[in-house]
Amino acid sequence: MIVGVETGGTKVVCATANEDDPSRPVHSETFPTADPAPTIERIRGYLREAERRGGVSAIGVASFGPLDADARSPRYGTVTSTPKPGWSGTDLLSPLLDVVDVPAAFTTDVNAAAVAEHRARGANPGNFAYVTVGTGIGAGILIDGALMGGSGYPEVAHLEVVRHPDDRFAGVCRFHGDCLEGLASGPAVSRRWGADGSSLPARAQQAAIRLEAFYLAQLATTLRYVVGTDLMIVGGGVAKTPGLIAAVADRLAENDGAAGGSGRPPLQVEPPAMPGRSGVIGALQLAADALAAAGDLAHV
Amino acid sequence: MIVGVETGGTKVVCATANEDDPSRPVHSETFPTADPAPTIERIRGYLREAERRGGVSAIGVASFGPLDADARSPRYGTVTSTPKPGWSGTDLLSPLLDVVDVPAAFTTDVNAAAVAEHRARGANPGNFAYVTVGTGIGAGILIDGALMGGSGYPEVAHLEVVRHPDDRFAGVCRFHGDCLEGLASGPAVSRRWGADGSSLPARAQQAAIRLEAFYLAQLATTLRYVVGTDLMIVGGGVAKTPGLIAAVADRLAENDGAAGGSGRPPLQVEPPAMPGRSGVIGALQLAADALAAAGDLAHV
Repeated sequence: MIVGVETGGTKVVCATANEDDPSRPVHSETFPTADPAPTIERIRGYLREAERRGGVSAIGVASFGPLDADARSPRYGTVTSTPKPGWSGTDLLSPLLDVVDVPAAFTTDVNAAAVAEHRARGANPGNFAYVTVGTGIGAGILIDGALMGGSGYPEVAHLEVVRHPDDRFAGVCRFHGDCLEGLASGPAVSRRWGADGSSLPARAQQAAIRLEAFYLAQLATTLRYVVGTDLMIVGGGVAKTPGLIAAVADRLAENDGAAGGSGRPPLQVEPPAMPGRSGVIGALQLAADALAAAGDLAHV
Repeated sequence: MIVGVETGGTKVVCATANEDDPSRPVHSETFPTADPAPTIERIRGYLREAERRGGVSAIGVASFGPLDADARSPRYGTVTSTPKPGWSGTDLLSPLLDVVDVPAAFTTDVNAAAVAEHRARGANPGNFAYVTVGTGIGAGILIDGALMGGSGYPEVAHLEVVRHPDDRFAGVCRFHGDCLEGLASGPAVSRRWGADGSSLPARAQQAAIRLEAFYLAQLATTLRYVVGTDLMIVGGGVAKTPGLIAAVADRLAENDGAAGGSGRPPLQVEPPAMPGRSGVIGALQLAADALAAAGDLAHV
């Protein structure tokens, strides 16, 4: 069996699946993300139990970031400089490998979700981005089917954006004020409008959707021009606002010059195929990949 | 011997080098870029002569874009939808391979320049971008030492940018008006100020540099956040404006929040190591790579 662990900002999901069917967990457990020591201890407990139940042959860990995800780095497997109290510098991977000494994958929660959402769309959905818009904004990017990125990137949260002409809100980013995350994250929406996008009265909701779509379309355009994104999935809490994803697509269509992606069909925007579950399923898929890669190495 | 061909917007450079020393051409020839048929015929003439002189074992072609650079595409080797009169849909590669049937590389001029500038900086300059700012704006991006990109991307010219508060210029992009290329290309500088950056009186030049640095720093920040760029080289005509590159670096330092590239040293900006020659040298290096790859395949 393989185990996937998603450590999110508020909860941890641990799941077990068969090695040859990572997308369909046979068992899972969810608990709140607390301080590092007790949280990691609960994950270790899950691993010990999985070990007893049927053995663990590989693990995949998908964590909130930023992470040191460079396998050559001495700090590989740690959460680096997160604003989350107590977690900066936490070694997340080693204490798990002390319980089960098996092949492991370690990446961000959004990268894992990107992998799962990509695979849910069949053989070749083109260059791909999974964007999550919630407390923060993050993206996992696949180019020609392979995850792109390393320690500290992609980090689309802090992209500079052109302000909507009607937007007078200062922004909530503690570093930049009005970067993408400062203007378009969940906290930005709540602070600008006094409520989250799904709870606003109809008229305010239309205005909120117009601004949010304006900013997310800029992100889509940037990803298109830099990494050739063909399909962008928008997940996370803010993405649940009814009508938002269609509004992003409309804004993109409006915005589409003749330039960009010569010969490529226009960028598409879609909701997640497996909202709320893609992180842990991606972690399981990456665990299965790590197991397969270790097998290949053993045959060299 | 190997041959590198750089077909630029205004001139073509053909060069010959030894297979094991692609960075030092032993022969080269330059002529203006005219209509496709006579231009391609001159390149074919160069190849025939190189063939007579010592044989041609591989070629590298680096062209103004946009290109179909996807080796699996039926239109591989063609210039696609360029505004350059007569060149849209021109098959550039096949007529050359009709003269010399050898391993070939085909990519954009800016990708080839990026490869050459990257290799000129030794073993590991980190994630890398070569940006050219002239008639247009383009970028070649390397991640972990490998060229990133495919047909239609990267295409940074049309990135949306936040306007400098002092900038009232409408922009010159025929698609978007005030995208990056619309506000920061050579034609944008000339139209906004009535002269190119190097010919302006001192005071206007300072203002021009301030605006240009503001826009190029945004490009640098975008590349940093999306593809983790550690070192950005700025080449092309506009980059020759004295003081510009230092101004971009200053603006970046000013702008640098605590976020972005956790654990990575700050992004550096530098001038080209081989201005004006990196395109054809990159074409030669990619020719040598294509030859080596063909050799590896032959041994499988």
